[in-house]
Amino acid sequence: MTTWCRLEVDGTPRFGFVEGDCVTLVAGSPFDTWTPTRIHCGPHDFRLLVPVVPGNFYAAGLNYRAHIEWAAGRHGIPAKVPAHADVGYRSVNALVAGGEPIVIPKDSPGPVEYEGELVAVIGRRARNLSEGEALGCVLGYTLGNDVSERAWQRSDRTLWRAKNTDTFKPMGPFIITDLDPMRQRIVVRVNGQVVSAYDTAAMLFDVAHYIARMSRYLTLHPGDVIWLGCDGATEPALRPGDTVEVVNDAIGVLRNPVVLES
Amino acid sequence: MTTWCRLEVDGTPRFGFVEGDCVTLVAGSPFDTWTPTRIHCGPHDFRLLVPVVPGNFYAAGLNYRAHIEWAAGRHGIPAKVPAHADVGYRSVNALVAGGEPIVIPKDSPGPVEYEGELVAVIGRRARNLSEGEALGCVLGYTLGNDVSERAWQRSDRTLWRAKNTDTFKPMGPFIITDLDPMRQRIVVRVNGQVVSAYDTAAMLFDVAHYIARMSRYLTLHPGDVIWLGCDGATEPALRPGDTVEVVNDAIGVLRNPVVLES
Repeated sequence: MTTWCRLEVDGTPRFGFVEGDCVTLVAGSPFDTWTPTRIHCGPHDFRLLVPVVPGNFYAAGLNYRAHIEWAAGRHGIPAKVPAHADVGYRSVNALVAGGEPIVIPKDSPGPVEYEGELVAVIGRRARNLSEGEALGCVLGYTLGNDVSERAWQRSDRTLWRAKNTDTFKPMGPFIITDLDPMRQRIVVRVNGQVVSAYDTAAMLFDVAHYIARMSRYLTLHPGDVIWLGCDGATEPALRPGDTVEVVNDAIGVLRNPVVLES
Repeated sequence: MTTWCRLEVDGTPRFGFVEGDCVTLVAGSPFDTWTPTRIHCGPHDFRLLVPVVPGNFYAAGLNYRAHIEWAAGRHGIPAKVPAHADVGYRSVNALVAGGEPIVIPKDSPGPVEYEGELVAVIGRRARNLSEGEALGCVLGYTLGNDVSERAWQRSDRTLWRAKNTDTFKPMGPFIITDLDPMRQRIVVRVNGQVVSAYDTAAMLFDVAHYIARMSRYLTLHPGDVIWLGCDGATEPALRPGDTVEVVNDAIGVLRNPVVLES
């Protein structure tokens, strides 16, 4: 199990791996070839960046039954479970690392809600994988908070403002290798209180199925990410002054403050 | 007016500008700082690449009335014109340069259709632009073919297979600066026959409006692209063996053969 991180060192993004309280910077990247350098630092000596800036930013969206039923119930409409693993998209403009604020636009009608998610990070180029082969192209897993402006999610023709407003996609803190993606517990805390907790075993379409199906039509590239959806309700809404955390025992804590646009 | 291109030179992507039959390679890129080198070549000495690999890949989608009315009429449903300029997304896995084949998957029910589009290429970081300022962040314009698998566009929950199958996003050949995006004629030819011709003046939301509205919520980054939609019908369907061209007098010809997946 390797813990990869990405740090800003002298203004340049550098990859490193974490062992205990020590980060070893590498030459190269985990997405290509790399060699350890002699440069060691503490995990807080440099600013932690999003662990990867993906070329393709995929999101499973509706991938847990209890979340779909909760969202449908809130609007008094029948729950509609997807028949197939059809992946959607997010955009890198919206990425922020742990510690950076989630900025709610002044004209947001709200509510703005968290969605704590497991994220698969692709490690090698792949096409036409079987489900048995699929997880072999994954470098590791990180956490994402698919922050969503629910009024815009309903009013707009696309998800652009609802999901991809600047700062709405916290991701991190680390990429952890050798994790079973179907046996993870994802917890969300707001101001220290647990507001959501679910097991990835409840996914409608598991990670291997998603990757295999996607790879039938598209090439997966090193650094691409697939956000895997969230389960259950996503209340209470985030308010300026809150701190929201997405937590997994192996991956760590993705913590972001919430502020109102000034 | 500068004509930018991107070439593969000794396995490395390099930017250059075209003057007559001569390309001058530059050190750096038009998206940052650049200086001309003493390396000159012919436009066909090296392989032409997509003129930019965007960090964020935006697509206006429904942005011309005649296209919306044609698509609705085909399915016998009322035409619904968008109330706002809500931008959508495409993904870079699907990009190919001029000359590269559009590969129709074996299991495509079809039809697979062209959509010839003007593409704005962002040149500098921008946020909160007025409509008057908006075009100032554009480096220039290129052409795109938003190839679409219409059966999947109707059957799938998202546009992933319909629009983002590998090779479904030809873009190029050049990025042309100092163009008025609202006074361009876009022509599509299949096997040399004109099958579509329209004027960008018919956009529902003009380029400045799209950019200004987007920049209210998201940061535009150098290299981001915005595909601006197409007008009218997109028939006849593309068939293996066809050659499809998107043509503009200033930008040139984006030509791609169509093949069936082997």
